[in-house]
Amino acid sequence: MRKPKKLINEPLNVAQEQFEGLLSVMSGKLEALPGITAAIRTDLPSDKVAILTGGGAGHEPLFAGYVGHGLADAAALGDIFAAPPPNVILQTTEAVNNGKGVIYIYGNYAGDNMNFDIAAELADDDDIKTHTIRVWDDVASAPLEKITERRGTAGDVYVLKIAGAASLSYSFEDVVKVTERARDNTRSIGVALSAGSVPQTNTFNFELPDDELEIGMGLHGEPGVAREKMSSADEVVTKLIDQLCDDLPYQKGDEVCLLVNNLGSSTYMELLIASRKAHALLAERGISVHHTLVGNYCTSQEMSGYSLTMLKLDEEIKSLYDLPCDSFALRN
Amino acid sequence: MRKPKKLINEPLNVAQEQFEGLLSVMSGKLEALPGITAAIRTDLPSDKVAILTGGGAGHEPLFAGYVGHGLADAAALGDIFAAPPPNVILQTTEAVNNGKGVIYIYGNYAGDNMNFDIAAELADDDDIKTHTIRVWDDVASAPLEKITERRGTAGDVYVLKIAGAASLSYSFEDVVKVTERARDNTRSIGVALSAGSVPQTNTFNFELPDDELEIGMGLHGEPGVAREKMSSADEVVTKLIDQLCDDLPYQKGDEVCLLVNNLGSSTYMELLIASRKAHALLAERGISVHHTLVGNYCTSQEMSGYSLTMLKLDEEIKSLYDLPCDSFALRN
Repeated sequence: MRKPKKLINEPLNVAQEQFEGLLSVMSGKLEALPGITAAIRTDLPSDKVAILTGGGAGHEPLFAGYVGHGLADAAALGDIFAAPPPNVILQTTEAVNNGKGVIYIYGNYAGDNMNFDIAAELADDDDIKTHTIRVWDDVASAPLEKITERRGTAGDVYVLKIAGAASLSYSFEDVVKVTERARDNTRSIGVALSAGSVPQTNTFNFELPDDELEIGMGLHGEPGVAREKMSSADEVVTKLIDQLCDDLPYQKGDEVCLLVNNLGSSTYMELLIASRKAHALLAERGISVHHTLVGNYCTSQEMSGYSLTMLKLDEEIKSLYDLPCDSFALRN
Repeated sequence: MRKPKKLINEPLNVAQEQFEGLLSVMSGKLEALPGITAAIRTDLPSDKVAILTGGGAGHEPLFAGYVGHGLADAAALGDIFAAPPPNVILQTTEAVNNGKGVIYIYGNYAGDNMNFDIAAELADDDDIKTHTIRVWDDVASAPLEKITERRGTAGDVYVLKIAGAASLSYSFEDVVKVTERARDNTRSIGVALSAGSVPQTNTFNFELPDDELEIGMGLHGEPGVAREKMSSADEVVTKLIDQLCDDLPYQKGDEVCLLVNNLGSSTYMELLIASRKAHALLAERGISVHHTLVGNYCTSQEMSGYSLTMLKLDEEIKSLYDLPCDSFALRN
């Protein structure tokens, strides 16, 4: 059986070392909080609602890659595929709060939910106001009527973008309101061709036969909706767009942002071929694309495959999306 | 033997389809020249020296991903791993020229050299002034005394950045002068863990045993300088930095830009772990890093591994590097 092949040092240190790598390339714009794995902006404004994100490592550039002007203000980080502990979230909450409250934005997973909820209770004891917005964009992970059971994937990027932009000038309640609407307007679905691996154990998350792909695969190898024979990119993208559009639904006259996200080891060529078909299908449906991101935004180690995410715009969300932002992973 | 697994359509159409994908995501900022595979800015300034790049497909986001404000003005594109034909380069030259001349910037490969040289001669017949700057940054591909035999790799990114910035205000001769100095100040070296594949034949470029890596592997699977047993990331990065620094040489007091480039399927985690060590080693040498890029800038399909590129700055090159640019693959 094929084994993963990665260039790392001590496997137990990968989360810490990649975090230190990010800090080194950010040239002083990001710093670690003392004693914990959490990143905070060094240019933290003193007069705005704080946006705090976080989650497990292994999905780089999530989460610390989205800390910066017009995005998140800090990120509380866990080990590979593991939620950040409550004390890490709490300390990050205390560091990022400046009296205007802290909004938690993270992917909807049991471990993250539990630890962020504990931190929120402890923050409340400290009289720090928090509000939690869980991202549940993955349409493959539960039916629409159970949307709050869906997993969070690359949709985090759009939700953080809108929250970070709104936080530049909005009140706490207004940031919550527009960010929850952006979250509700966001849907994702992925396709996997091969598995990612866990560095600590050096084993793949799952096995997929050479002639098969899986629609709806989760970021940690959670089962998708259909395992199928390999087919053409256009056929697969058509299925993904159909599932996405039927879910919200996105319909004629809508304007959206589109994210074509590499789950890990797909080639840029494949991402662009997928982008071509996605644009053509959306045009056929009368849905216009305001802006497209293509690249590695929310990964699952070396998983081969990609996900498509759409954010439905309205006037307010569009104007927030267009505001400048500046982080490691996203800049406009 | 393991076979490549990619989500594409007709294998003979991949170069064309990824190009169409790029045009679709650029929302009107880039257009194709009629009847050929070449991209040109739709906001082409009418009063500046033109920068023309190009080369084979399969290295996305090179080359068309670097067409935009402050970078290249157009890109002439070939099929997978194949130089653009002379007529494509000539037509792109004619389209991009506005009387101030056209500077060709591309990687130093026999096919590209031949076709760009033919185009330059034909352009001369049309009274279009051209100048050619070949990028030969790969230190592993020939000894220093034969630098003009070295291959061009991710160094293209830095050379295009400086040329594009200079072209905003400089004369033809001055763009050439600073760009050639930037080229001469640029060095790269890569490490491969596994091969990329050619989509048309669905075969890997080379085979590498599971417990080996290759230092200095070329972008098309050209042999490197050493095939070694797998070791730690820190050991490998130390070898890469040693080779780079010894070559120019880069020395104490120098200020550089650093590019940690994914050759294809390495995880972002590995890139950041490499960035951490590269920064530490440069600090030990007394070399300061002005700015770091980390990601997929010049790829070789799904090759696993990465390359390090350094650009030595001086006052003029640094001020050009810091000017804004806006393209699919690079923005600051």
